Amino acid sequence: MSHKITHQRLAELVGGELAQGDPEGVVTGLNSITEAVPGEVTFLGNPRYLPALKTTKATAILVGGDFAESMEGVALIKVANPTFAFSSVIRHFGPPARDFTPGVHSTACVSSKATFDPQQVSIGPMAVVGDDVVIGDGTTIGAGVCIGQGARLGEDCFLHANCTIGDRCVLGNRVIIHSGTVIGSDGFGYEFVKGRHVKIDQVGIVQIDDDVEIGAACSVDRARFGRTWIGAGTKIDNQVQIAHNAIVGKHCIIVAHVALAGSVRMGDYVTLAGQVAIGGHLEICNQVTILAKSGVTKNITEPGAYMGFPAKPLMEHKRQLAAQSKIPDLMDRIRTLEKRLAALEGGKAEG
Amino acid sequence: MSHKITHQRLAELVGGELAQGDPEGVVTGLNSITEAVPGEVTFLGNPRYLPALKTTKATAILVGGDFAESMEGVALIKVANPTFAFSSVIRHFGPPARDFTPGVHSTACVSSKATFDPQQVSIGPMAVVGDDVVIGDGTTIGAGVCIGQGARLGEDCFLHANCTIGDRCVLGNRVIIHSGTVIGSDGFGYEFVKGRHVKIDQVGIVQIDDDVEIGAACSVDRARFGRTWIGAGTKIDNQVQIAHNAIVGKHCIIVAHVALAGSVRMGDYVTLAGQVAIGGHLEICNQVTILAKSGVTKNITEPGAYMGFPAKPLMEHKRQLAAQSKIPDLMDRIRTLEKRLAALEGGKAEG
Amino acid sequence: MSHKITHQRLAELVGGELAQGDPEGVVTGLNSITEAVPGEVTFLGNPRYLPALKTTKATAILVGGDFAESMEGVALIKVANPTFAFSSVIRHFGPPARDFTPGVHSTACVSSKATFDPQQVSIGPMAVVGDDVVIGDGTTIGAGVCIGQGARLGEDCFLHANCTIGDRCVLGNRVIIHSGTVIGSDGFGYEFVKGRHVKIDQVGIVQIDDDVEIGAACSVDRARFGRTWIGAGTKIDNQVQIAHNAIVGKHCIIVAHVALAGSVRMGDYVTLAGQVAIGGHLEICNQVTILAKSGVTKNITEPGAYMGFPAKPLMEHKRQLAAQSKIPDLMDRIRTLEKRLAALEGGKAEG
Repeated sequence: MSHKITHQRLAELVGGELAQGDPEGVVTGLNSITEAVPGEVTFLGNPRYLPALKTTKATAILVGGDFAESMEGVALIKVANPTFAFSSVIRHFGPPARDFTPGVHSTACVSSKATFDPQQVSIGPMAVVGDDVVIGDGTTIGAGVCIGQGARLGEDCFLHANCTIGDRCVLGNRVIIHSGTVIGSDGFGYEFVKGRHVKIDQVGIVQIDDDVEIGAACSVDRARFGRTWIGAGTKIDNQVQIAHNAIVGKHCIIVAHVALAGSVRMGDYVTLAGQVAIGGHLEICNQVTILAKSGVTKNITEPGAYMGFPAKPLMEHKRQLAAQSKIPDLMDRIRTLEKRLAALEGGKAEG
Repeated sequence: MSHKITHQRLAELVGGELAQGDPEGVVTGLNSITEAVPGEVTFLGNPRYLPALKTTKATAILVGGDFAESMEGVALIKVANPTFAFSSVIRHFGPPARDFTPGVHSTACVSSKATFDPQQVSIGPMAVVGDDVVIGDGTTIGAGVCIGQGARLGEDCFLHANCTIGDRCVLGNRVIIHSGTVIGSDGFGYEFVKGRHVKIDQVGIVQIDDDVEIGAACSVDRARFGRTWIGAGTKIDNQVQIAHNAIVGKHCIIVAHVALAGSVRMGDYVTLAGQVAIGGHLEICNQVTILAKSGVTKNITEPGAYMGFPAKPLMEHKRQLAAQSKIPDLMDRIRTLEKRLAALEGGKAEG
Repeated sequence: MSHKITHQRLAELVGGELAQGDPEGVVTGLNSITEAVPGEVTFLGNPRYLPALKTTKATAILVGGDFAESMEGVALIKVANPTFAFSSVIRHFGPPARDFTPGVHSTACVSSKATFDPQQVSIGPMAVVGDDVVIGDGTTIGAGVCIGQGARLGEDCFLHANCTIGDRCVLGNRVIIHSGTVIGSDGFGYEFVKGRHVKIDQVGIVQIDDDVEIGAACSVDRARFGRTWIGAGTKIDNQVQIAHNAIVGKHCIIVAHVALAGSVRMGDYVTLAGQVAIGGHLEICNQVTILAKSGVTKNITEPGAYMGFPAKPLMEHKRQLAAQSKIPDLMDRIRTLEKRLAALEGGKAEG
């Protein structure tokens, strides 16, 4: 079976318009703008790749509606959002989506006290499902996943192989958890008593709301009591650490290697770039973006972009960076002032 | 069964004194100071939450012995350490602790050459225990845990689901390892020979002493030879990386995303805050605290707090930060000096 | 069986020369230079340990060919590269290497549609091998490892316990993957549509070429389409994050807690020190070293060392650091200038 498709059909597939090129010309595959060969379709989704347009060997290109450059010998398909529209192309050429195959694998270890419809969930090889676990319809539990007793999973969740869900944690619907990730490890809490760190019980849970996705090798600690809470629609990259009792709002973006300390409270539509850290007990309001590697040390109560350690409003951070680069110039000017002043003092003394 | 408890019994439970309120009043649950509703008990463990006292709806509050504010309509229980004392409250209301249920799950794969008392250890579903492993009484091995050959585990350890213990690694008593964590991965050692990185054998072990807790998704590499060593009572948060041949002292605190390079030697009672890095082969003496995101590039031989990259004594770091914030002011003052000097030079020239 | 060995045989074992000491003297064990006791052999591989030479109790020491210090009562063996040569000593005294024991463990769950020679591969307990997986001869799949459908593994690979290989990912020959690591998690890609982050399908793969080693608890995301690609001979430490569509060249070194954003393209012989971050879509040419904790924000087109955030050529970064340390001095000089100028102005006014 061939995946080949005409330019015209391609335009229809992505909901765009064939602005240039032979409607009956065909493409047989897809690739990035730098690696495409003749016969392939690509897309221009980031102005960073404009220079690559000159050298691309692609036969067809998805471009934005305002694309105005002239290009020869290539089919141009205009579409509102080329990056997003390319997903339809990927789906056309890509591997067939894995079917949802309901049933409990014979090697899985599932408690007889778990509640689910075996015709409506998929439990993979070597998975472990504890007592009193509840699993919603349409949910997939990958190979080697361990789910602790009393955990509750909503509908249409996907737990990738070898992730771990701790006792009593609660996942909403359409939650995706990637491999290696741990939901519900103990919070990091000790009291220092007579020269020793004595463990404080961590008996709360983690609550993850609808449509959250959490990447690979993350850790989300359970609350000391109550809950650590990830709001609906929030997306978390790999290797992210979320400490006990943290509250993350809705529709946030948390990039790789971010660390949230305990009891942080984040609003909605917050973006944390890579390697950011947020100090314990801090509040961050809605619509805040923290740029990469920043460390937040105070509450943030105004929407906007922040950067640095300690994190400051972005403009202030940039001014400070710029000021630092001026130090050598300042040194020169001081040296000059010292000479001029000495000359003047000498002149006066002499005068 | 109700968990409700009178204020008087609550005071006794936490070893405190009912300083205000009706001894026979009751609470039926617990919560944080900001989320408590009437009928719940909370605690004031951090001065940061003093403003929340004014608005809390809690019916009873654990406070410190020196608490002197007046509050109406609420029971106040004075206790030496409210945060710590609250653990008794959590235990009262919390989920019942999971019983230790000895025995080897039928789906576990346990070598016949492993040594342990099956009546005294708990081995979960899908766990793998290699040849010549020794397991002390009271130890729990969670679902999906893999223990390599020749590893030795002490008494009353708890290995959470899906963690991995490498060949010949040694754990003391009461060691807790959380899910996803890897003890005994190979050290990162290569020699560069003719344009290639050639692997150096890593045949040492990891030794973890009594009462150590290691969080989720951590990695502790085995030594090239000899041992990587975590001292008794040390507590390690999530996502921490400890390289080969590192030695961590006793009763240290290592927060999330810290990285120790190879052959680091840390003393006792050292605290490393989040995202700290320690360079290879460095020594850090007892009683040192390294603040968040710092990078240590030299030996530290004096107790105290350090910060920055390169890490400096905290006061020096703060002075440097303060100095940086003065640059715009310095620029202004130089500009003013230049004008005044020019005026003077001009005046003199004219004079 | 004793491992004891004479100084002469030791010199032969490491391909070196006994420069000093009794050829028939014996050592019975090995240790680091600081921990060695009489009867043990050690090595001097790092000038940092020169002071330890004065106090070491070792009986024999491997030193470099140009070692010129005089030491009494100790056997000195000169060899080109003491660190590397010591591996032979470790092998002599160390635990016997684990044999490769071919066969499929009875508890493993291996698809009947997987392709491999059961006499030539080793599949451990509880491992899961999906449909259409291909496994080369000499490859070991550890306990609890999950391999998704259609993945292809070359010859002589070693997948340590509890790692995860996603669908359709491709590993070359002699690839080592440590425990907890995830190859082929979904790339972190969303489009923001009407207030929600909508997942962009991630249907590409991860390709890992020959002789790559990846440490514990790492994550390598699959490409949106096409491949995320790790070049031959590259070595990756623990807890490293590699985002979708990143391309890492050959013979690179990537140290712990590094994060590569999406579509990064790195050349060959690039070294990234601990906690470095590389921004999305950036290119880094061959032979570049990025020092610890740096953040790269622009393409790097010249070989050399870079540091800071934003990363700059190392010399420039050092100059900037030095300049910052001069600020207090600048403040003093400005204060002095102000006084002198005021005096002069006053003098003039009076004059």
